[in-house]
Amino acid sequence: MASLLEAFERAAAASPLVRFVDVALRGLGQVMFQDNPLTGLFFLLAIIWGAVSTGQPFVAICGVLALVVSTGTALVVGVDRTAWRAGLYGFNGVLTGLALATFLTPGPMLVVFVVLGAAMSVIATLATQRWLAGHGIPGLTFPFVATSWLFLLASHGFAGVSGAGLPAGAVTAPAVMVATDPLHVVDFVSGVALSISQVFLKDSLVAALLFLAGLAVSSIPAALLAVAGALIAVIVAHLAGAESELVTGGLLGFSPVLTAVALGCVFARPAPRNLSYAAFATIVTVIAQVALNAALAPVALPALTMPFVLITWLFLMAWPAEKH
Amino acid sequence: MASLLEAFERAAAASPLVRFVDVALRGLGQVMFQDNPLTGLFFLLAIIWGAVSTGQPFVAICGVLALVVSTGTALVVGVDRTAWRAGLYGFNGVLTGLALATFLTPGPMLVVFVVLGAAMSVIATLATQRWLAGHGIPGLTFPFVATSWLFLLASHGFAGVSGAGLPAGAVTAPAVMVATDPLHVVDFVSGVALSISQVFLKDSLVAALLFLAGLAVSSIPAALLAVAGALIAVIVAHLAGAESELVTGGLLGFSPVLTAVALGCVFARPAPRNLSYAAFATIVTVIAQVALNAALAPVALPALTMPFVLITWLFLMAWPAEKH
Amino acid sequence: MASLLEAFERAAAASPLVRFVDVALRGLGQVMFQDNPLTGLFFLLAIIWGAVSTGQPFVAICGVLALVVSTGTALVVGVDRTAWRAGLYGFNGVLTGLALATFLTPGPMLVVFVVLGAAMSVIATLATQRWLAGHGIPGLTFPFVATSWLFLLASHGFAGVSGAGLPAGAVTAPAVMVATDPLHVVDFVSGVALSISQVFLKDSLVAALLFLAGLAVSSIPAALLAVAGALIAVIVAHLAGAESELVTGGLLGFSPVLTAVALGCVFARPAPRNLSYAAFATIVTVIAQVALNAALAPVALPALTMPFVLITWLFLMAWPAEKH
Repeated sequence: MASLLEAFERAAAASPLVRFVDVALRGLGQVMFQDNPLTGLFFLLAIIWGAVSTGQPFVAICGVLALVVSTGTALVVGVDRTAWRAGLYGFNGVLTGLALATFLTPGPMLVVFVVLGAAMSVIATLATQRWLAGHGIPGLTFPFVATSWLFLLASHGFAGVSGAGLPAGAVTAPAVMVATDPLHVVDFVSGVALSISQVFLKDSLVAALLFLAGLAVSSIPAALLAVAGALIAVIVAHLAGAESELVTGGLLGFSPVLTAVALGCVFARPAPRNLSYAAFATIVTVIAQVALNAALAPVALPALTMPFVLITWLFLMAWPAEKH
Repeated sequence: MASLLEAFERAAAASPLVRFVDVALRGLGQVMFQDNPLTGLFFLLAIIWGAVSTGQPFVAICGVLALVVSTGTALVVGVDRTAWRAGLYGFNGVLTGLALATFLTPGPMLVVFVVLGAAMSVIATLATQRWLAGHGIPGLTFPFVATSWLFLLASHGFAGVSGAGLPAGAVTAPAVMVATDPLHVVDFVSGVALSISQVFLKDSLVAALLFLAGLAVSSIPAALLAVAGALIAVIVAHLAGAESELVTGGLLGFSPVLTAVALGCVFARPAPRNLSYAAFATIVTVIAQVALNAALAPVALPALTMPFVLITWLFLMAWPAEKH
Repeated sequence: MASLLEAFERAAAASPLVRFVDVALRGLGQVMFQDNPLTGLFFLLAIIWGAVSTGQPFVAICGVLALVVSTGTALVVGVDRTAWRAGLYGFNGVLTGLALATFLTPGPMLVVFVVLGAAMSVIATLATQRWLAGHGIPGLTFPFVATSWLFLLASHGFAGVSGAGLPAGAVTAPAVMVATDPLHVVDFVSGVALSISQVFLKDSLVAALLFLAGLAVSSIPAALLAVAGALIAVIVAHLAGAESELVTGGLLGFSPVLTAVALGCVFARPAPRNLSYAAFATIVTVIAQVALNAALAPVALPALTMPFVLITWLFLMAWPAEKH
């Protein structure tokens, strides 16, 4: 594997086109913090499988289009080359493309939105970096969330696109929820797996396994923490009485998965004390996901990965610097 | 009184348990900016009276539980000892416990929420401090507000807790309000007193007097400014035609009370120019309370002390540094 | 013209009253970034014409009152004299006065709101400056937007004022919009012109011409960019299928006009690369206007110039410093 990656790196050094493909793949890998083109390749396969197997190939096409546009826009704007090569200007773009294609109906205007959104995600990434520079925290997927919210909200006022896939706008009112069904083993496994694939807005078991494999080829701790984050999310959400469909569909787990990986092994060594801290943050991320779903209901917006961003920012800022 | 406090301080220096009690009481006092265990004791009695006299003893229990958990969490996380001893990691915790118990229905899940929320309030306090470090302003009760909003919103999606006490979610629409009733003396006194007790989410005259007594043993200017803030709030809200029940229930006055104390004698000397500035800020806080009530209606959230936090932040940042 | 301005400047240097008038007029000009009393005079005439010709003279009166109060408040608070003389403490005030008078019904309480709001806009300006100091970006019209939102929201809870002019509060739901009508030449011209006059919340062709004349006497590039921004807004909004009335009424164009001027010639030289960048930002501002309209519908608030503020902040922060 290592020699394969070396050969690819040599080819990338020789050809701008191969370099672009290398950077785009790394951009995919960076969605889960991996600066690794092989991880990106696995993620690409997972996205294609998840889209094609559910009869929505255009979602994968929009994702790839957005990945190419955002990676290219960063070149045109003239960002720092080291960061660009690590794929740091691609992951917000590909997620924006996937989100717009998932929630809006296909058509020429969707393609325009994907291209504009991908380019805008680069501007948002640069602005977020500069905004957070003094606070010593990373931008995470905030540029993706901000850009996607902007374009999804705009769909309400343009006849050219329709947000048919958006959550129904509804007044949030205190309601006594019915108790959740008992959680069968198959639901449990489904909830854990889909929590991982929903990081890329996909609900597919096969895709989940491909995502895990992609993580594992780059970092075993990251793969283990992704599973741990998904386990915590499903257990906490079920015990607290969340809606069964949300739990088993992985819709309360994708943010906790990202929090577990980020705080467990990306921004801190996986030492016992750090892992307890990450576990607490992961539990709070489940609560934040349910909270943001409720908060955004009146504007008919999905929370996307904002719960992960918010809670990871809070815990990173609270963390005494010497423990990083 | 002074010798009593000295004896208590000696006992605290000798015993970690007494120290913990001392710090917890100071945490209570810090809700109104007083680093004084006797003030905290008065506030504790007020909370217990307010809860028991209205048949809701569990509210007081949840408040004390949250106070202990947040004060303890700060020890475990390892915060600065001087700030910890002054009770600065307790006041957001106790308010979070009181708020969750006030708006959610009792049960095992509420206890879990109170414990998690109290611990989270410490993380939020540390993160807020670091976020605001470069701007030279204090976190105030923002960690309490942010943590409580998170858990209150989450109650919409968990069957284990129910937000029966939350404001009804409703679309805010421009409406012609009916004129308010004339304000009788008894209503006026009630509005002023309850504006003070509502700082701790209590509507009790006796509790209001205990809160005032607790303030007075530590700082006469603080007690006077609390009354002045409440007077301004009731008069302004009534003249502008706010709903009578909100005015006489103190529900538009608790944020102005905090603004008046904070800007009148905590973050500035009570000189004439500063007091005029604080008076203007107090009036604007009344308007901000009504504004945030409207803004949060669609998500069925109470504004809590966010109007105080927002307006005090604005005025502290606007204040030329030499006038502090 | 130059000698006229010089004579006026000599008179201002000799008389505090003339100086105050000079500063107030510059405050008007600063709404579109012009530190020029003659520009302010044209803008004043446009506001008066726009208000009187539609039978709402009190809107112009409230605007002038707010301009005087905010310019005077800045003197009392004691701001930096150079900034004060350039009118930088007046433009948020006059916009706040115009917005409150446009959306709230006339009466004594409106006058109180205008005075308080104008004074508050100065506090908000100072706080915004200090908040953004470390980020190297200007406050733009954010103090106006924040102050106006506060007072407009408060109208929901006070019987003394009524937000009869506010947008109807409504749950935003994904809806399939009907296709827009074809855009006739007269609609097109109307959309472009009113996009400029709506910067001051006016829908009047004559006012639009006066605003353009005021811009042109100070800066030809600014006038050209204002027209270009309006053209982009009308074309983009129409192609994307926005509601015809919003397009021809200029209601999707006033923020893009400000973005085009700000990024095209105020915060950067009008070089080709910068102009492309400004054009992209202007397109995104149209999308942001539609997005914020949807996001604010549940709280029945107008977006005002927040789309311009948000997108201009993003693009200024993303811009590598050497290109400014």
